[in-house]
Amino acid sequence: MPMEPDAGPAHRGPAVQDRYPDDFAWCYGCGRHNPAGLHLKTYPDGDETVTVFEPRPEHMAVPGFVYGGLIASLIDCHSMATASLALYRRDGHRLGDPEPVPRCVTASLKVDYLRPTPLGVPLTVRGRVVELGQRKAVVESELYAGETLCARGQVVAVLAPPAMTPGPAGAERRPG
Amino acid sequence: MPMEPDAGPAHRGPAVQDRYPDDFAWCYGCGRHNPAGLHLKTYPDGDETVTVFEPRPEHMAVPGFVYGGLIASLIDCHSMATASLALYRRDGHRLGDPEPVPRCVTASLKVDYLRPTPLGVPLTVRGRVVELGQRKAVVESELYAGETLCARGQVVAVLAPPAMTPGPAGAERRPG
Repeated sequence: MPMEPDAGPAHRGPAVQDRYPDDFAWCYGCGRHNPAGLHLKTYPDGDETVTVFEPRPEHMAVPGFVYGGLIASLIDCHSMATASLALYRRDGHRLGDPEPVPRCVTASLKVDYLRPTPLGVPLTVRGRVVELGQRKAVVESELYAGETLCARGQVVAVLAPPAMTPGPAGAERRPG
Repeated sequence: MPMEPDAGPAHRGPAVQDRYPDDFAWCYGCGRHNPAGLHLKTYPDGDETVTVFEPRPEHMAVPGFVYGGLIASLIDCHSMATASLALYRRDGHRLGDPEPVPRCVTASLKVDYLRPTPLGVPLTVRGRVVELGQRKAVVESELYAGETLCARGQVVAVLAPPAMTPGPAGAERRPG
């Protein structure tokens, strides 16, 4: 059977972020065009989504534990991708279609830090859409170190407003 | 008159993060010992606190705008410092005293992104404590680009639990 590009991370088809429009692929957290960024990659996994990321040694809060800002970033970018994919699918597409995935931005982000997150192991973020509107989605994401749930996020995503769409002026603001 | 070390950012006395214990000064966002980190500095300003930080060009969401994870990090580290200072003052100290400032960690973080935050200008975060308990504080922080309010945070801070206190094992986990 041919591979299903939308069938889960095991298949390693495109990530959601691989299919953002070029103008919206510069995010420090997850933009494929940002050479200095973290390059988070969100894959569909059935009705859920998954990102796996191992923080760098410097991403510490105190020695041995991950700093909260990185955890917030992981949950933020992963939840945006989860929302974007849900809106894309709602419009009849599947990941791998030629049309780019619409880019969402964060309206609000809530993270509960349940326990210290250990440094030195890959972290897994799993997301699911709990509410889907015309131009927005609410996503719940959970961050695990191994099997241990360390943080939980609830994120409201909205389609990027026209003010954030790069035009000729936006192009000028791109890094060289 | 002698300078008041606790009288506000104009005087540039020590920042809160300058007075964290050495073992708790490694945070990527604000640790003075983290060579790869952002080195955020929170100063008292009357009943409020202030951090000023200019994101690097790569800290973008899309060209021209700051990515949400950095905004969350600024609000997180600034709010932790605000809470730590409040607990320190509650115990009768003032910034500049020889005793180190106790280190708080994040229990929960909520950020409302009110409008896109422009890249290329210094951002100012102002914080204030709205609730102070024995071992925790609730802090509200607002992030401005110039005079424009771009994001608002509410953060619950608690004193770092014993599990996060570096002992000999913690010391081994420090970066070389």
